[in-house]
Amino acid sequence: MASESGKLWGGRFVGAVDPIMEKFNASIAYDRHLWEVDVQGSKAYSRGLEKAGLLTKAEMDQILHGLDKVAEEWAQGTFKLNSNDEDIHTANERRLKELIGATAGKLHTGRSRNDQVVTDLRLWMRQTCSTLSGLLWELIRTMVDRAEAERDVLFPGYTHLQRAQPIRWSHWILSGAIAGNPLGVDRELLRAELNFGAITLNSMDATSERDFVAEFLFWASLCMTHLSRMAEDLILYCTKEFSFVQLSDAYSTGSSLMPQKKNPDSLELIRSKAGRVFGRCAGLLMTLKGLPSTYNKDLQEDKEAVFEVSDTMSAVLQVATGVISTLQMPFRQAHEASGKAVFMAETKGVALNQLSLQELQTISPLFSGDVICVWDYGHSVEQYGALGGTARSSVDWQIRQVRALLQAQQA
Amino acid sequence: MASESGKLWGGRFVGAVDPIMEKFNASIAYDRHLWEVDVQGSKAYSRGLEKAGLLTKAEMDQILHGLDKVAEEWAQGTFKLNSNDEDIHTANERRLKELIGATAGKLHTGRSRNDQVVTDLRLWMRQTCSTLSGLLWELIRTMVDRAEAERDVLFPGYTHLQRAQPIRWSHWILSGAIAGNPLGVDRELLRAELNFGAITLNSMDATSERDFVAEFLFWASLCMTHLSRMAEDLILYCTKEFSFVQLSDAYSTGSSLMPQKKNPDSLELIRSKAGRVFGRCAGLLMTLKGLPSTYNKDLQEDKEAVFEVSDTMSAVLQVATGVISTLQMPFRQAHEASGKAVFMAETKGVALNQLSLQELQTISPLFSGDVICVWDYGHSVEQYGALGGTARSSVDWQIRQVRALLQAQQA
Amino acid sequence: MASESGKLWGGRFVGAVDPIMEKFNASIAYDRHLWEVDVQGSKAYSRGLEKAGLLTKAEMDQILHGLDKVAEEWAQGTFKLNSNDEDIHTANERRLKELIGATAGKLHTGRSRNDQVVTDLRLWMRQTCSTLSGLLWELIRTMVDRAEAERDVLFPGYTHLQRAQPIRWSHWILSGAIAGNPLGVDRELLRAELNFGAITLNSMDATSERDFVAEFLFWASLCMTHLSRMAEDLILYCTKEFSFVQLSDAYSTGSSLMPQKKNPDSLELIRSKAGRVFGRCAGLLMTLKGLPSTYNKDLQEDKEAVFEVSDTMSAVLQVATGVISTLQMPFRQAHEASGKAVFMAETKGVALNQLSLQELQTISPLFSGDVICVWDYGHSVEQYGALGGTARSSVDWQIRQVRALLQAQQA
Amino acid sequence: MASESGKLWGGRFVGAVDPIMEKFNASIAYDRHLWEVDVQGSKAYSRGLEKAGLLTKAEMDQILHGLDKVAEEWAQGTFKLNSNDEDIHTANERRLKELIGATAGKLHTGRSRNDQVVTDLRLWMRQTCSTLSGLLWELIRTMVDRAEAERDVLFPGYTHLQRAQPIRWSHWILSGAIAGNPLGVDRELLRAELNFGAITLNSMDATSERDFVAEFLFWASLCMTHLSRMAEDLILYCTKEFSFVQLSDAYSTGSSLMPQKKNPDSLELIRSKAGRVFGRCAGLLMTLKGLPSTYNKDLQEDKEAVFEVSDTMSAVLQVATGVISTLQMPFRQAHEASGKAVFMAETKGVALNQLSLQELQTISPLFSGDVICVWDYGHSVEQYGALGGTARSSVDWQIRQVRALLQAQQA
Repeated sequence: MASESGKLWGGRFVGAVDPIMEKFNASIAYDRHLWEVDVQGSKAYSRGLEKAGLLTKAEMDQILHGLDKVAEEWAQGTFKLNSNDEDIHTANERRLKELIGATAGKLHTGRSRNDQVVTDLRLWMRQTCSTLSGLLWELIRTMVDRAEAERDVLFPGYTHLQRAQPIRWSHWILSGAIAGNPLGVDRELLRAELNFGAITLNSMDATSERDFVAEFLFWASLCMTHLSRMAEDLILYCTKEFSFVQLSDAYSTGSSLMPQKKNPDSLELIRSKAGRVFGRCAGLLMTLKGLPSTYNKDLQEDKEAVFEVSDTMSAVLQVATGVISTLQMPFRQAHEASGKAVFMAETKGVALNQLSLQELQTISPLFSGDVICVWDYGHSVEQYGALGGTARSSVDWQIRQVRALLQAQQA
Repeated sequence: MASESGKLWGGRFVGAVDPIMEKFNASIAYDRHLWEVDVQGSKAYSRGLEKAGLLTKAEMDQILHGLDKVAEEWAQGTFKLNSNDEDIHTANERRLKELIGATAGKLHTGRSRNDQVVTDLRLWMRQTCSTLSGLLWELIRTMVDRAEAERDVLFPGYTHLQRAQPIRWSHWILSGAIAGNPLGVDRELLRAELNFGAITLNSMDATSERDFVAEFLFWASLCMTHLSRMAEDLILYCTKEFSFVQLSDAYSTGSSLMPQKKNPDSLELIRSKAGRVFGRCAGLLMTLKGLPSTYNKDLQEDKEAVFEVSDTMSAVLQVATGVISTLQMPFRQAHEASGKAVFMAETKGVALNQLSLQELQTISPLFSGDVICVWDYGHSVEQYGALGGTARSSVDWQIRQVRALLQAQQA
Repeated sequence: MASESGKLWGGRFVGAVDPIMEKFNASIAYDRHLWEVDVQGSKAYSRGLEKAGLLTKAEMDQILHGLDKVAEEWAQGTFKLNSNDEDIHTANERRLKELIGATAGKLHTGRSRNDQVVTDLRLWMRQTCSTLSGLLWELIRTMVDRAEAERDVLFPGYTHLQRAQPIRWSHWILSGAIAGNPLGVDRELLRAELNFGAITLNSMDATSERDFVAEFLFWASLCMTHLSRMAEDLILYCTKEFSFVQLSDAYSTGSSLMPQKKNPDSLELIRSKAGRVFGRCAGLLMTLKGLPSTYNKDLQEDKEAVFEVSDTMSAVLQVATGVISTLQMPFRQAHEASGKAVFMAETKGVALNQLSLQELQTISPLFSGDVICVWDYGHSVEQYGALGGTARSSVDWQIRQVRALLQAQQA
Repeated sequence: MASESGKLWGGRFVGAVDPIMEKFNASIAYDRHLWEVDVQGSKAYSRGLEKAGLLTKAEMDQILHGLDKVAEEWAQGTFKLNSNDEDIHTANERRLKELIGATAGKLHTGRSRNDQVVTDLRLWMRQTCSTLSGLLWELIRTMVDRAEAERDVLFPGYTHLQRAQPIRWSHWILSGAIAGNPLGVDRELLRAELNFGAITLNSMDATSERDFVAEFLFWASLCMTHLSRMAEDLILYCTKEFSFVQLSDAYSTGSSLMPQKKNPDSLELIRSKAGRVFGRCAGLLMTLKGLPSTYNKDLQEDKEAVFEVSDTMSAVLQVATGVISTLQMPFRQAHEASGKAVFMAETKGVALNQLSLQELQTISPLFSGDVICVWDYGHSVEQYGALGGTARSSVDWQIRQVRALLQAQQA
């Protein structure tokens, strides 16, 4: 019938099944990422069936054992996909049946496929959020470590990219670490949502809403927006014109035509990913817009978005941590010297300009006659002592605050 | 000089000040919305100055009195803008100086304009979030009221827009009310962020990050996505083909050419606003992407986005409440009859098909011979008694859950 | 050095090269799609070098021969990637050198890698645009074929999803075919831009602007928006409530729980892809926003976007063609009968209600007493005879217009 | 009835007409922009009616005269809106009836309101595209003028924001002017689409597709993306670190706290608008996604988007022209001297280093002993003589190309 129509309307020939449609419909190419949580979910469901008296203990054991076998095959890379395995759920079911026979069919008593899909994704996201959260805290920890070790390095602050007051380097780096914090909070929200302690209030809403996906994608977009801004700052600081920092070779590339150049590829890639991640968030919201309630196949778009964004965030957070931990500050010596002098004056309880040249030269041989402007620089920084400011005491306070968050996180 | 260049390069003539640039730069056209919070913020700041010994008590009183005068003029519509008032802050300052003279200048001791702007916006958003939250709870309350009163109305459930099991109308309406809930949670987050109890950790971050704006815009986008889906369902249910519900005249328009038509304009407008609101969210994130840290004028884009989205949400939530509260269900009578029979059977502890025709006709004269299919319909609904399902007991439980949330909210 | 810093700041250990950075930086995983155009571009470049006297004829022949060998290996799947092959260009270069030795190095005399990358992408897009254009015309041809064969099928028109005048089925289907047309125009633009007849006006602009990518992604987004609307219409027409059309089994799936359901998965997937494709367009524009001129690594984001969108469009256009060519109209017989009567009246030059029942029954046995309302239906359609309207003559004119476009395209 | 339901469900009281719905539904607040094209369209339509014999000559004259009166009132600001005027079309109709009586009603014979709305918007966009196009060409002309006058100014080129070869300032400025060109082409497309010479092929498509709006918004987004990149470059070039250019006071603002700062507000605002404009494009596409065919009220979202984007583009293009025409280059003198020497060597047919110090000092007293590096700088620039390169001859060629486009445009 279909094929006749195909002929009639001049479209390409279409048999009972259109192979392009099959491929278009299949999700196995990407939802195989879910193999582990699918098995985990099925094991939990079979225990539920046994409790409800719908499976005998023996049947449950047979199913649990079979599912462990399936998981083992995936883990060892020996799971063989059939051409009919259109998604991870049918693939695992088919294999279970091959392994344990007819009992496998009982696993699906009263189970909705749409529920299974959304549960698997929630389980997978619980894992990925936990991993990403670890990487995020690692980045923040690295920033705080540097902030603490380099409290005495001063450099120009900017508004509108015009030089404003000098600030501590640690003040800049902590502004990034703090921008990371709210993300931690969001993740908590997500985890709370994902821990399944709470009962889904409404079954229509359960298969159809993707708030947990949308919120994850938005968290990632906002996080990437922050990181794109940090990357922009560092790209500027790497230029010959600014020359505040130097990127490690591990995170830059040379140009074949101009060997003296050192391109900040890592930072540019971080900056660029803000677009990609946001694009996924925008795409999902557009897909959701105006969709009738309950399940529609449109919702299948959620998974690739989540997988890609998760991979991107994982790489970005690790590369950012690497960049921050290996960054060099060319003028650190000089800056440090002036910072130490500020500290010496503070300790001695005298004004900076009351330190003798002799005293100064115990700090660094760099000190010579024209120390006045250095004092101005250092003095300028120290006058912003309010909480959140750039004075040493304020920066120390910020470091303690973020460390406290880090510790609370680990507990 | 500028004018010479203007001549030289063939561009349009440009004097010392380009009037188009002035207009391009000015924000008074929209940030006048902030008049009240700007006065509020300035009053708080002047109290802070007095505490710090930077204002005498008399000076503070003079400033507070002057600011009250400024607020009064705004409230009564008598505040007169000058052509030099480029934003609400300069306008209020200028007026204060006219009213109380030179003391006005002391108000700005050590005050950063960028901080003032962001504080005003945070204060304004605290107000607007509270208002929107009230409207959102009003919508949810209306939905729960209807859900409770119409528990016995059954209609077809759909997945893929194909008829699936019959469900309770209340089950559908609660799926919308529950989709509203997480928004309440988000709003709490926002409010927590806005109550200023916590100290801003880092001064660079404070003037430059706009997470509270981005999160508000995303909350609104996600909320609108839900409402667009509810609107889509109702638009379908209003068609001649579905004919499940009838929109009140107050929320539909007729067509001049075809008087029998009743267009669901209100629902279409609700659906369409998802695009507009999301567009503002997308626009802000794009503006933030790659921006150097601290203040850049680009950040001025935040305010119009917030104002427009706040207005849109306010109208959408009120219209949605009106639509839901005035919606008619044409087949309610018949559905109700079958629902009541289910309840009668439940009460009597018998199966539905054990009810006699006589008993049934005490419920409604609509009952006649072909009641079998009605039983199937009703029976089908009742078998989903798990929490979150569409059985009457489950729907009742959902109503109690959402009511509890509503009460917790009011407390 | 880097590793010391790594230790110092507590970040994860980072050697001379961070393997995660290498993977983050490498594009070979997706730019291998470019193998063919990369070889093609290099062959053209070597001919240019020979003309400019920078290669001897013998050297050029050696390089051309080597490049053919490289291409052969890719085509046969025998090309082996090294772990150092970070992109397709270095991979092909490395292999060429292995095959022909030192002469390979001369291929890169005065050649900019950034230019090579962008040229390869332009060449690839020329191919892909041509392929997609073919698929698009195939879809339009199928629509026009159906429109022509089914001119006599009438069904309700809608505005606001409320029934308005009856229209011809062909009128609906042509509104989709015509929405496809402007796309053809756009493609022409793109092809013109890609045929390299014109010289790039400015070398800075050449490596840095991605208008051809942005325009391709926007074309795809707009095309998908149209297809999402066509899909929405058909999803509604497939519901039990509308029941205007029936999807072929080849493009729908059943539900395991409810065998009578036939879910329009193909149409839902088409509708959903509008979000994904637009997300890629949004992502690229966000990546481009505020980027300094000339090459920045951020631009590497262009390729995956283009590859993914190209694959998506290819599948969507083919599935849409399949759906349209196999769609059944359940009430076609009855509709056709009334349409034919309209035509008979037209031909005989009499009013519809002047046809005798006898005459009508030569058309179809379906005609019986209550033909009045059929006349009204048919009459209503015929009164819209203006160009672009739904009368048979107007629909015929539209078919001729689109056929003319199809022929012009093939010429 | 409605009010009873209102009471029943606990929603706010809703009478026969909900005032919030009325405001939500009304478009007069923004579509009043269309007053002129609405009159223009109605005049054309009444002429059509007369030709078709549906109006007498006298009736047509009465209508035309009345419409002129309506237009006059709008132009003079004396048009008074009624509370019932929900959009510009009903407002103009109502007023026409007041002015000429019952004949006014005949104007709407067979006229579809949806057609009228979309025609008005097309007419308005034809005007606005023409205006914006003029402003765009003005910007390009200014850039070319500067490029021509300052061909001898050299400055560093960048890739990855790392210094690469030196380039001519004119090369940079032309890269912006050329990025503007494709926009001109797009505008032509748009104009072609809007000149109404062609007949709308399909009436369903005509009221429902908004490609001309989507394409306009995308053109604006892409144009703003280019301008955001030009702005980013100039913001960097304005920093103390780069110090290549100085913004005119007319386009920058000072900081009250730091008088020496000169903030590039104009450029930051230009950069920021890319987000806003793209947000409108994204919003419209999301609104269109999945919309059923023909008219839905959702389409009303098109107008505010177009009006806002048109205003934004108009301001941005004018401010950009002002910025470019008044920009100063602090090191122009020195750069110019070296450039002139290059030209002298070229003219004399000798290598740069063969010019004597004496000859050089006829160009500028700035020349002294260390001219070697200047030669390298100049020499480096001159070796890129290929079309599109940065050599003086290539830059001159680019100027001629863009001038030719400008002239073609004016013809």
